[in-house]
Amino acid sequence: MGGTNLRAAAVAEDGTMLEKAAGSTPMQAGPDATVADMVLLIQGLRERLGKSGLVGVGIGVPGFIRMETGVIAGWAQQPAFAGYPIRDRIEQGLGAKVILENDANSAALGEKWIGAGTDVDDLVLLTLGTGIGGGIISGGRILHGAQGMAAELGHITVSPNGYPCGCGNRGCVEKHASATAIAAMGRLMNLGANLTAEDVYNFAVAGNDRALAIFRSMGEALGIAIASLVNIFNFPLYLLSGGPIPAWQFFAPSMLAEVERRSFTYRSAPTRIEPAKLGNEAGLYGAAYLPFQDAGRNANP
Amino acid sequence: MGGTNLRAAAVAEDGTMLEKAAGSTPMQAGPDATVADMVLLIQGLRERLGKSGLVGVGIGVPGFIRMETGVIAGWAQQPAFAGYPIRDRIEQGLGAKVILENDANSAALGEKWIGAGTDVDDLVLLTLGTGIGGGIISGGRILHGAQGMAAELGHITVSPNGYPCGCGNRGCVEKHASATAIAAMGRLMNLGANLTAEDVYNFAVAGNDRALAIFRSMGEALGIAIASLVNIFNFPLYLLSGGPIPAWQFFAPSMLAEVERRSFTYRSAPTRIEPAKLGNEAGLYGAAYLPFQDAGRNANP
Repeated sequence: MGGTNLRAAAVAEDGTMLEKAAGSTPMQAGPDATVADMVLLIQGLRERLGKSGLVGVGIGVPGFIRMETGVIAGWAQQPAFAGYPIRDRIEQGLGAKVILENDANSAALGEKWIGAGTDVDDLVLLTLGTGIGGGIISGGRILHGAQGMAAELGHITVSPNGYPCGCGNRGCVEKHASATAIAAMGRLMNLGANLTAEDVYNFAVAGNDRALAIFRSMGEALGIAIASLVNIFNFPLYLLSGGPIPAWQFFAPSMLAEVERRSFTYRSAPTRIEPAKLGNEAGLYGAAYLPFQDAGRNANP
Repeated sequence: MGGTNLRAAAVAEDGTMLEKAAGSTPMQAGPDATVADMVLLIQGLRERLGKSGLVGVGIGVPGFIRMETGVIAGWAQQPAFAGYPIRDRIEQGLGAKVILENDANSAALGEKWIGAGTDVDDLVLLTLGTGIGGGIISGGRILHGAQGMAAELGHITVSPNGYPCGCGNRGCVEKHASATAIAAMGRLMNLGANLTAEDVYNFAVAGNDRALAIFRSMGEALGIAIASLVNIFNFPLYLLSGGPIPAWQFFAPSMLAEVERRSFTYRSAPTRIEPAKLGNEAGLYGAAYLPFQDAGRNANP
């Protein structure tokens, strides 16, 4: 489940994507219509590929999920889904067991399974978009926390008196380094009225000073957050994904300089900070991996 | 192993402390003399309590340990120990298997086993002293990171342009909230020339405005760091230990207010922030628990 529509895929145990399908029902049609479309998509894949080989169904869902009950606890963009028992409804429609997972967690697991993190058991993923999401893989598994709300990495404080965030905090890293933040800085700095992060990127490519300064500032904010994550986890790998990744050349130097300066652990322990590899397929792969992992299968690409 | 001397204890599987002993050799005598004293202490306990029941030996060590090799990688206060193969030397002296662990990690495990965290499987401990140390228990086990350097929680940035830290960063939480920081603020604010954190506490008890402001500021810095930890982990329990804990009434209100304001997760999920229970016995208990855990025993208090 994306922010606006559905995608489904059949994925084999070796990581081969056998077939992909896209839904036609927008999320705005509400939870029942969305679930009906989801069931249709998955049934279509099962019929075309054979029912016998199905290990399970994993679904990446935006927003907070109550892991035990399979209920969406909250989803800011689609409030109609809040409190909806989505797992039970899909299981009823499909007649098969379903595993739900937060979408950023799924993406982190996908990168671990078949993307940029296949050689490690521990990694952190930051997804840069409207906000900044996160997923933490510890010992090969998603770190959920007590209510499945772990890895709200976009709300790490990087500037205690910084920009106010909807979460109540000030100076959350997502207010200073998300795609939304890049566009906001561009507008505030008079690069254009209806600017997107991509527009700011294009200005930077053309050598515009202010656009370049925006990406340096964004990189610094990311670097402050990542330095704390390195100090907290001592993991070997920190991945970044999302729309702003093509601007890597513009924000990575200041990001890496901040981490280098702020983390003794980074300077002492081999630590990679890299772009993720699977783009917006990461969540599909991670959701597909969930049933293999749950079944105790040692699925290898 | 403490910062200056040795303590040993025999602990039963139900958490009963059977006997305690203190070493007579100061760390400054160097690693060989320290190990000899350590072996003597443990052998004394074994002889008095019977050798047959020994499950194993766990040792909490300050500084960084290479977990695989049992070598102390670095210890700022006792450089003579850097690179010393302490695990092998103790095993040779004792003729028994030894498990090494960082002291703050041991303390966190001790609190989980028999202290303030017996009812949870996931917790974070912050130890306030000269600096701020940390231990993270995830799924009942210590989170080590790739090189055993995880949980350097004292170096979480709470003020990106704050006070410079020996680690290279600025505004590390330990520069604003450790016992050392409390004393430094007291001296900078002219409360006295050779002031300790305890002196600042005594001023606060007497109602001194500046001392009270120091604890409010210290609480804010802690709160900024803990809010990020709550957003990252969604764990049910965050514990604080160390010398400044008696000042809880002076720093906790501002600390909790910061966490409340800065963490949506804290406001949504049951989360406790509390003093630890075992004081400076926590590390002894945690070290003692290591062999039980390693042997797969379900040791219960």
